[in-house]
Amino acid sequence: MLAGAAAAGVAAPVVVAGLGTASASPETSRPARAGVTRRVTVYAEELGGGQFGYGLSPGTATIPGPVLEVYEGDTLEIDLVNNTDRRLSIHPHGVDYDVDSDGSPLNDSFNEPGTRRTYVWKTRAPFQKDGRWMPGSAGYWHYHDHAMGDDHGSGGILAGLYGALIVRREGDLLPQRQYTVVFNDMTINNRVAPDIPVIEANQGERVEFIAIGHGNTFHTFHLHAHRWVDNRTGMLSGPDDLTPSIDNRDLNPGDSFGFQVIAGEGVGPGVWMYHCHVQFHSVGGMAAVWLVRNPDGSMPDGAQEALDRYQAHEHSSHAGH
Amino acid sequence: MLAGAAAAGVAAPVVVAGLGTASASPETSRPARAGVTRRVTVYAEELGGGQFGYGLSPGTATIPGPVLEVYEGDTLEIDLVNNTDRRLSIHPHGVDYDVDSDGSPLNDSFNEPGTRRTYVWKTRAPFQKDGRWMPGSAGYWHYHDHAMGDDHGSGGILAGLYGALIVRREGDLLPQRQYTVVFNDMTINNRVAPDIPVIEANQGERVEFIAIGHGNTFHTFHLHAHRWVDNRTGMLSGPDDLTPSIDNRDLNPGDSFGFQVIAGEGVGPGVWMYHCHVQFHSVGGMAAVWLVRNPDGSMPDGAQEALDRYQAHEHSSHAGH
Amino acid sequence: MLAGAAAAGVAAPVVVAGLGTASASPETSRPARAGVTRRVTVYAEELGGGQFGYGLSPGTATIPGPVLEVYEGDTLEIDLVNNTDRRLSIHPHGVDYDVDSDGSPLNDSFNEPGTRRTYVWKTRAPFQKDGRWMPGSAGYWHYHDHAMGDDHGSGGILAGLYGALIVRREGDLLPQRQYTVVFNDMTINNRVAPDIPVIEANQGERVEFIAIGHGNTFHTFHLHAHRWVDNRTGMLSGPDDLTPSIDNRDLNPGDSFGFQVIAGEGVGPGVWMYHCHVQFHSVGGMAAVWLVRNPDGSMPDGAQEALDRYQAHEHSSHAGH
Repeated sequence: MLAGAAAAGVAAPVVVAGLGTASASPETSRPARAGVTRRVTVYAEELGGGQFGYGLSPGTATIPGPVLEVYEGDTLEIDLVNNTDRRLSIHPHGVDYDVDSDGSPLNDSFNEPGTRRTYVWKTRAPFQKDGRWMPGSAGYWHYHDHAMGDDHGSGGILAGLYGALIVRREGDLLPQRQYTVVFNDMTINNRVAPDIPVIEANQGERVEFIAIGHGNTFHTFHLHAHRWVDNRTGMLSGPDDLTPSIDNRDLNPGDSFGFQVIAGEGVGPGVWMYHCHVQFHSVGGMAAVWLVRNPDGSMPDGAQEALDRYQAHEHSSHAGH
Repeated sequence: MLAGAAAAGVAAPVVVAGLGTASASPETSRPARAGVTRRVTVYAEELGGGQFGYGLSPGTATIPGPVLEVYEGDTLEIDLVNNTDRRLSIHPHGVDYDVDSDGSPLNDSFNEPGTRRTYVWKTRAPFQKDGRWMPGSAGYWHYHDHAMGDDHGSGGILAGLYGALIVRREGDLLPQRQYTVVFNDMTINNRVAPDIPVIEANQGERVEFIAIGHGNTFHTFHLHAHRWVDNRTGMLSGPDDLTPSIDNRDLNPGDSFGFQVIAGEGVGPGVWMYHCHVQFHSVGGMAAVWLVRNPDGSMPDGAQEALDRYQAHEHSSHAGH
Repeated sequence: MLAGAAAAGVAAPVVVAGLGTASASPETSRPARAGVTRRVTVYAEELGGGQFGYGLSPGTATIPGPVLEVYEGDTLEIDLVNNTDRRLSIHPHGVDYDVDSDGSPLNDSFNEPGTRRTYVWKTRAPFQKDGRWMPGSAGYWHYHDHAMGDDHGSGGILAGLYGALIVRREGDLLPQRQYTVVFNDMTINNRVAPDIPVIEANQGERVEFIAIGHGNTFHTFHLHAHRWVDNRTGMLSGPDDLTPSIDNRDLNPGDSFGFQVIAGEGVGPGVWMYHCHVQFHSVGGMAAVWLVRNPDGSMPDGAQEALDRYQAHEHSSHAGH
């Protein structure tokens, strides 16, 4: 588990395939060997209030579910335990799976209530075919239910059965903090302001966002005072790379992207908003805050006041203005 | 015409500018000469039930219309015959045309009922200007009516007057199968599940998708178990290319993209869904299936059962779940 | 100020940081020195009819506001004078600012009615961190109110408090004409057809579009007969660059992009539409025209007739068709 993520309360990131524990400084990922097969048990559980989540042990399900991470070349065997009274499944984006692991009722690939089923996800590096380079699996992907409520998992997704899936390429840089942010209909991680937990980092830390879109509505993800580039890693290949820098990006159902930023780089510590930029969505509660602490972890001047203002978010127009 | 496309029933792809017949294995496109001018007659016809289509001979109009293909440098002269009682036109994306070929009422560029009119589309390779490389015409584009119903062709588009336009660059790889998938309002190619024809390929074949968005609603195109990269060809320039791999992409009105995948590569044969990932759109019928047969063309285990389940698609929530 | 932009009436572009006056031919930008700090006073004013705008002197506010331009490395100090009776602010995308310059009520960063406040925006070139190239500030960005009406500035944005912000990189090519096009809810620059001013250029001129999305609805920006590539500049890095050519692009709230085209290149002069490609949006008035004059500035054949037709835009279906 990466440092700080659990504390942030937004997700329960879990390093499945050996990315190791958090380090004091960013390090380049270098798996000891390629093509490892890892097995992980995932538990689907009801959380009350019509919410459901995935977890890595009984009683620990969260919304979003754990961050699953592998390297290109690895295989992930998901042993899904359905501890609910609904049929459900787990369907990944970006990786390779045969029809038995599709997670769709179309392919009879789901868990009946109370059952256990294995889903196998394979990954691979870019490879040549017909003299061309076909895409590898590396990317900021996601997984979700595809069977609860209807044949497309609409009920499961609405209820919280989703999470981030990262496939890293050898040499990718590892973050020190990691957050999963899911725009699911009119919520962020099935919550609305001011009930979205505050995420935190210290100034200078390398922080990774995984952004996922779900549901029925369109959104745009905006992060204040930090930018990334619109490619696989969020960083440039070099100073002449023409990939656009962005700080606002469409985040529609089934889509995902990720990036790493240096917390407070060039802008300082403080409380920074991230929100849907569709105006009535942000006003309606799709607005959250990222607390960037001082480098030593102390509170920046004015930060508590900003957090207090966030808690007073009212989902309505500003009276008198 | 490329092999399999007509059999798939989704479109009637037609190679206009000499891409040749299908080959047993993928080959690199190498036009004998550049700058060819080709003339093609397109017939706009009423199909009944309020539907209209374009075709390459009288009585053969389809929705979507034929795939028109040229090489950068070629000119395409479209002789549009309006065999309907409505005014209509043909307006392309991506290529060069003067105001007379704009296809818009604004420029008095349309066919009155029963009339014939020529539209000229030119293309060109990237070229230098002021020390910069300006974009060429190569791309997965589209064409559509711009005059029926209102000055923007809303009625014609709604009724099915649209199709794919591919401009290839010398050296581009040719596919063995080709499908046009148009998300037009709440339909795929003006149909909804389970009435969307099954598209087919054999495992290992190089398959090209051309995805087009139309109408009034936003969509995301998701293909199960296959991915591409978000650039002009869907393939990487090399193993270090940072272009993201994707399997879900926004597909909004007027937009288009295309890519080639190897059918069943790394995942095996079977029935794979492609659908809008907006939940109520897929449940409402924007879901279709791609049958990837065994390499020898035989049916994979379980595929018929999956096709049968698709036919039972009910556009509603799963009773009891 | 760049030639023609003011005449076009769409915006009041202003070169803040020394890009100089328009030139007869495009030239490469080469700032005399890096890291300049410039101060500009911006006036927020009520324009009547519920509209508000930003301007560079009292009584000159426009919708959209002035184009603000700097080079990577420069600092821009915005002295915002609030000449209205509402609270409001100025919030930028893409650049660096501390919490005091955030422009959000969350950070107590706004102007009460009648007050003056300084917002500091810094920029920087791409830089290396942990062996990677982090993104620079160069890009086609924008600024907008973040405090009027509610804590997200929904009221200010709706009313017209927005504009383009360009951060150029040394060596970038300067345009001869420049237009800001903001898709704000169901309007272009808070207007609908046929009341959107005609923009103009002469054939062969290098023209820059800055496109910005705002409000609550999704849009796609389409320009007839001209294309660009989907990267930072709209031009290719070289002939083998796989960045897609596009002529239609999603333009959703908070998003922005820009590009340069050569007016009428390969297609000739005339009246060219640019519009939202969502059908009921264009029919509803999100459609405008760009007059590309002959190289000598004279009117092309048929152009006046097209302009007259545009003036007759009726926002309704074509009677009898």
